[in-house]
Amino acid sequence: MAGTDSSLPLVLAPTPAIILCEPQLGENIGAAARAMANFGLWDLRLVRPRDGWPNEKAIAAASRADHVLERVRVFETLEEAVADLALVYATTARSRDMQKEVLGPEEASAAMAAHIAGGKGAGLLFGRERWGLLNDEVAMADAIVTLPVEPAFASLNIAQAVLLMAYEWRRQSEAGRALPFGGGLDEAAPRQELVGLFEHLEGVLDQTGFFTTPDKRPSMVNNLRTALTRGRFTSQEVRTLRGVISSIDRRHERPNPNRMKPAGSEPAKE
Amino acid sequence: MAGTDSSLPLVLAPTPAIILCEPQLGENIGAAARAMANFGLWDLRLVRPRDGWPNEKAIAAASRADHVLERVRVFETLEEAVADLALVYATTARSRDMQKEVLGPEEASAAMAAHIAGGKGAGLLFGRERWGLLNDEVAMADAIVTLPVEPAFASLNIAQAVLLMAYEWRRQSEAGRALPFGGGLDEAAPRQELVGLFEHLEGVLDQTGFFTTPDKRPSMVNNLRTALTRGRFTSQEVRTLRGVISSIDRRHERPNPNRMKPAGSEPAKE
Repeated sequence: MAGTDSSLPLVLAPTPAIILCEPQLGENIGAAARAMANFGLWDLRLVRPRDGWPNEKAIAAASRADHVLERVRVFETLEEAVADLALVYATTARSRDMQKEVLGPEEASAAMAAHIAGGKGAGLLFGRERWGLLNDEVAMADAIVTLPVEPAFASLNIAQAVLLMAYEWRRQSEAGRALPFGGGLDEAAPRQELVGLFEHLEGVLDQTGFFTTPDKRPSMVNNLRTALTRGRFTSQEVRTLRGVISSIDRRHERPNPNRMKPAGSEPAKE
Repeated sequence: MAGTDSSLPLVLAPTPAIILCEPQLGENIGAAARAMANFGLWDLRLVRPRDGWPNEKAIAAASRADHVLERVRVFETLEEAVADLALVYATTARSRDMQKEVLGPEEASAAMAAHIAGGKGAGLLFGRERWGLLNDEVAMADAIVTLPVEPAFASLNIAQAVLLMAYEWRRQSEAGRALPFGGGLDEAAPRQELVGLFEHLEGVLDQTGFFTTPDKRPSMVNNLRTALTRGRFTSQEVRTLRGVISSIDRRHERPNPNRMKPAGSEPAKE
């Protein structure tokens, strides 16, 4: 989806590090970098990327998340990659027979947010495309993080796992939950304008014989007013709708242009 | 990430339809299908897919989300694609100058959940890779849904936008929030076993001269006990640690195998 505002400055606030262990495909590294950028993460660390670094396919897949790619650090061992971090979580879709707490993305993000707010480093480990993290890598983590996926179809692409964690991370702050643009409803028109619309319409319908019998008129009017009230039309929309009524009405008048206009059908101010 | 349990039945509960308008790349259609499957969605509708349908690249990218691909429906117009739906939201990363409410993924999912619980159909529109939805497509929707992205890097891949909406949809139900496997901490050992470990260790340290002076011993013991209590060791872990202590201790004894063992260092039950 388009929508990036390049005029806005990128803020590199303290965020969790994303550590990919032996990623196989450059496309996935690039897609992970893009997912991080979408939600304000920027510290990407690679442990022994299979195809080396830098990687052309990663750059292509990152779709201009240059501020992340430029900062990528490559490590020979996981130990080096997490050396500066005091809180490390391992993401996995498989239960491991380990004495480790298992957290969901939200509680893990909340814990990382509190930790990082304390000025300390936190990181999330992601495993290989084929078989995820090794048990000796998971053993290095403080806890396991897993996603509430459909158990019958739990296999998540790495970049998508990174995306969901980045999304939950960003949602930890008030500012992060804010939408990039706001809700767009103008105020509904003052009731008198709505009544003006009703009377205009009903006046025209009196001429066209819409109200089959006088005794039916009140209930038919109520039903029309009920339906037309629900839309909470703005003043502009009320003017437009009156223009619509007048336009249709005038067509019916064409045979006799000198006929009196029905009350309340002054031309709409478009 | 691996972890799919193919023995589990796929449940096709009522869910929102995902409608892709003129998707350009088969890879994205397949990745969207996979993302839907991860979070229990299955109703995928395509409006004029550029490369036609079925699409080999989509099948490859779906990584066996066959139950979604098999049910894909292709439509000539958006009107046909949403004909049976009573609630339609348009996803966009761009603000549109329209009289439409703008919702976040969570409130949109909550509204769709309530609507679908009432037995009615709901759907989410996603636009083209290049320029998203056209205004006349957005105009067909009840409201706009946008994601709380980093405004300076708001461009989200379609499959990832689908993933986040599917994730939030699934989280609307108690069952959906459940993690595929549980937290793994066994109960901490009864305190007497922990005290046994402490006394074992302290007894050995009395022999090794770790406690430099008798007056320092109490505080040093307290510090050790404090550190070792925090781990909330299980009975098995306590036994393992006592084995560790005995093993190190015995190495120190080697020069004189007949020396008395220090009190409390009975061999650990491994």
